[in-house]
Amino acid sequence: MRRFATERAKRLLFGSLLASRSPLSAFHCSSPAAAAAMDPAAGVLTVDTINPKVLKCEYAVRGEIVSHAQRLQQELQNKPGSHPFDEILYCNIGNPQSLGQQPVTFFREVLALCDHPSLLDKSETHALFSADAIARAWQILDVIPGRATGAYSHSQGIKGLRDAIAAGIADRDGFPANPDDIFLTDGASPAVHMMMQLLIRYEKDGILCPIPQYPLYSASIALHGGSLVPYYLDESTGWGLEISELKKQLEDARSKGITVRALVVINPGNPTGQVLAEENQREIVNFCKNEGLVLLADEVYQENIYVDDKKFNSFKKITRSMGYGDDEIPLVSFQSVSKGYYGECGKRGGYMEVTGFNAEVREQIYKVASVNLCSNISGQILASLVMNPPKVGDESYESFNAEKNGILLSLARRAKALEDAFNSLEGVSCNKAEGAMYLFPRLRLSQKAITAAKAVNAAPDAFYARRLLDATGIVVVPGSGFGQVPGTWHVRCTILPQEDKIPAIISRLKAFHEAFMEEFRD
Amino acid sequence: MRRFATERAKRLLFGSLLASRSPLSAFHCSSPAAAAAMDPAAGVLTVDTINPKVLKCEYAVRGEIVSHAQRLQQELQNKPGSHPFDEILYCNIGNPQSLGQQPVTFFREVLALCDHPSLLDKSETHALFSADAIARAWQILDVIPGRATGAYSHSQGIKGLRDAIAAGIADRDGFPANPDDIFLTDGASPAVHMMMQLLIRYEKDGILCPIPQYPLYSASIALHGGSLVPYYLDESTGWGLEISELKKQLEDARSKGITVRALVVINPGNPTGQVLAEENQREIVNFCKNEGLVLLADEVYQENIYVDDKKFNSFKKITRSMGYGDDEIPLVSFQSVSKGYYGECGKRGGYMEVTGFNAEVREQIYKVASVNLCSNISGQILASLVMNPPKVGDESYESFNAEKNGILLSLARRAKALEDAFNSLEGVSCNKAEGAMYLFPRLRLSQKAITAAKAVNAAPDAFYARRLLDATGIVVVPGSGFGQVPGTWHVRCTILPQEDKIPAIISRLKAFHEAFMEEFRD
Repeated sequence: MRRFATERAKRLLFGSLLASRSPLSAFHCSSPAAAAAMDPAAGVLTVDTINPKVLKCEYAVRGEIVSHAQRLQQELQNKPGSHPFDEILYCNIGNPQSLGQQPVTFFREVLALCDHPSLLDKSETHALFSADAIARAWQILDVIPGRATGAYSHSQGIKGLRDAIAAGIADRDGFPANPDDIFLTDGASPAVHMMMQLLIRYEKDGILCPIPQYPLYSASIALHGGSLVPYYLDESTGWGLEISELKKQLEDARSKGITVRALVVINPGNPTGQVLAEENQREIVNFCKNEGLVLLADEVYQENIYVDDKKFNSFKKITRSMGYGDDEIPLVSFQSVSKGYYGECGKRGGYMEVTGFNAEVREQIYKVASVNLCSNISGQILASLVMNPPKVGDESYESFNAEKNGILLSLARRAKALEDAFNSLEGVSCNKAEGAMYLFPRLRLSQKAITAAKAVNAAPDAFYARRLLDATGIVVVPGSGFGQVPGTWHVRCTILPQEDKIPAIISRLKAFHEAFMEEFRD
Repeated sequence: MRRFATERAKRLLFGSLLASRSPLSAFHCSSPAAAAAMDPAAGVLTVDTINPKVLKCEYAVRGEIVSHAQRLQQELQNKPGSHPFDEILYCNIGNPQSLGQQPVTFFREVLALCDHPSLLDKSETHALFSADAIARAWQILDVIPGRATGAYSHSQGIKGLRDAIAAGIADRDGFPANPDDIFLTDGASPAVHMMMQLLIRYEKDGILCPIPQYPLYSASIALHGGSLVPYYLDESTGWGLEISELKKQLEDARSKGITVRALVVINPGNPTGQVLAEENQREIVNFCKNEGLVLLADEVYQENIYVDDKKFNSFKKITRSMGYGDDEIPLVSFQSVSKGYYGECGKRGGYMEVTGFNAEVREQIYKVASVNLCSNISGQILASLVMNPPKVGDESYESFNAEKNGILLSLARRAKALEDAFNSLEGVSCNKAEGAMYLFPRLRLSQKAITAAKAVNAAPDAFYARRLLDATGIVVVPGSGFGQVPGTWHVRCTILPQEDKIPAIISRLKAFHEAFMEEFRD
């Protein structure tokens, strides 16, 4: 097999014509070195000679459907009126500000002041910034050594900002948090990569992940060369997480020789939007404890809860309320400035709180963090702000609170309107978005639609999503990008378009769906 | 040493005392899974069960000497006067603003305005910001879709900012640059990781790296599981890069079955400070072309040149001036906002310009970039600014230019003063810092000093660096962290302390060195 790869490289370089092969066969190749030594050009990169783990990695939320949407957008720009819609509506990704959500004023005031601290000495500044933003900027500058906002920080992040974050966690949970457990990162994604890098040694190391899952997990596990061990969420119980399913999948993986090292839980769920009940979380903690698994808790949607009967509980709080001490449950909690009501995706801020690891392992995590020196300081500052927003009595409190509640209440209304719309469609059922930013409706497609999809070499849900995009400009991600029970089809749709656009979106969606069902009626 | 660690870990877990194994044996172990299935706790992390590539990785510029310095700093803070110095001088890392360098005003004005765009609508803003900073902020907002500075961008970075960077590259080189070749990143480090991830498939994939090297390369190669193939720079010719040495090391590696995939060149050099001559660069390009190697050009110090007879030439310019077209030389040029005269390390901005790869490989690079969504927007904006600073006629031009030249001329004076100081020390020789931010003096240590170092289980240069720190508070990094010809000893010292501190640093250094030489005279 390798021989062909080398030959293909030769063909590209030297113009000869030989047969070709699958790009993944490089996995099975033991030593291309001898060939390379004879043929220097084999060292030059082709898809046949790059790291096969990279080839294997997939990331649907920025995949083919988005590339197609970008082409359509370009066409609309070059030739307005060339499509049956005026704009592309990116419902593929949790990127609130790209769809018109405004940043929270207080946070941006503080960031601007920290970016240009000499403003703090000018009298005009008081006309432009709130008093508590100015005070907060001073507080932040005072904890930055030398007030140097342009210096690399400690590799875990600026100590004073970690203190603030730890205080915010303690307020949230009612249990203490240690600033030395906080690792500030450029968003949650690099934090997840860091943990995968630490955990995965070889292909037989497995990570239990929910299906459907956020594809960062499958991508990161593929890039680090491990195995994703799936556990299925139960759509019929509102995407319930059953311990019996965890056990079954764990035993199944072990019987195949896989060392399962960690359990990923996304709460609130992405793409599924469910919020875990406290009792369920306790069971999960005990399961990890009994099975010797690291618990990787993706809690980036902790502020996005839209129903009165559910509440976010961090896994840290759950473990402590169960009586487990700091060193008993290896737990990593991921948080990000990209989500919540702030939605500051472009700032790339976030942190992980790492508890329950011994000192030697902690040192190794620190070392990996240090190779990239530190995360960006604006993101660090913003992470400290979202964990410590204005409080009652602060000058900004009322306007801040109005902005925050305005966004969260609007998100709840949008979630409900879109959920109802999906449920009104023939053959579609959609669980409630209790939290997060997504709906994950199930599509029951006709045999005729499935056959038509097959004919163009597409999964049925990808076929549906593509037709939806071409007809309406709405971008959703096929369920296959997240994983789903085989034979079921879904799409993920964010709840993020601005509220005044929702009615038009719903009527376009309905019109498209009716026409699609008619066209492909068996 | 490791044996004890393993035993300790086991003892901690099981309280029993069992025989052990090398930490790297996990590489050769085909199935630890059976054991794990019987013993769930084996899944919990210890240094013996984490990814051995992480254990193997080292990163000296934030290593043991820095941890020791941080302890001393804490002691000084808790008990002033407890050491024979008042402050720790961190000369271990190229972090200018941590040592008092002020940020460039124009850059920070634009960043603050982009962080809080509603400032642009207020009349008071004109009293606080220069007119061209306001104009530039408008320009930048206009190229950000929806003016959403808080949104995830295109995974390569905002297109309009890449246009600006490409224009800056074209101005610099006199050859066109394509914005689609630019990948904006959170500093140069993630860009280097991305390329290593693409290039390294298994242990037998090798990357040619200079010795001494910046340890990002050795760390990144270790983390991705490849082999560092060293080539030695010639200290006797001012850290010259000889093609005969490249050939020799390449052939040697190939004879060991290693597939050499890429050549890393750091120009200006880190830690060595040399600036490559144009003719030498042409030879390097031809070497890569002939041997089928990707050329990884670390050009982050492109604005840091301190001697009149040397000039920075990008490898992109060199290849184009040799007549090679866009698709003939696989070349990646790394740039960062952390270096130059700006020194904005905390902003984590940078880019790589990727040329000479085919479309399929480019797609894979894009995919890897997309898994982390995008780099931080402030860093992206700053990268566009450093590649397009104020021009003659702009309101800020004169003050900007004064700040820029002030910093660069001061760096040149500091480099010369410290170089002269090192050369005045007994047994020390130091090449000129033609560029970058470092000196890498060679220490000729007595047998007695070497023996004393051995007695405390330290490399002789680490022993010297530790003694220097304890006596003076000056933090330098031992040469062993960068690699050096066996049997030679060096330290890396940045030229970054503020100019008014240099005389005191030099006299402390001299006094320490004289005492050290006396103490350990054979």
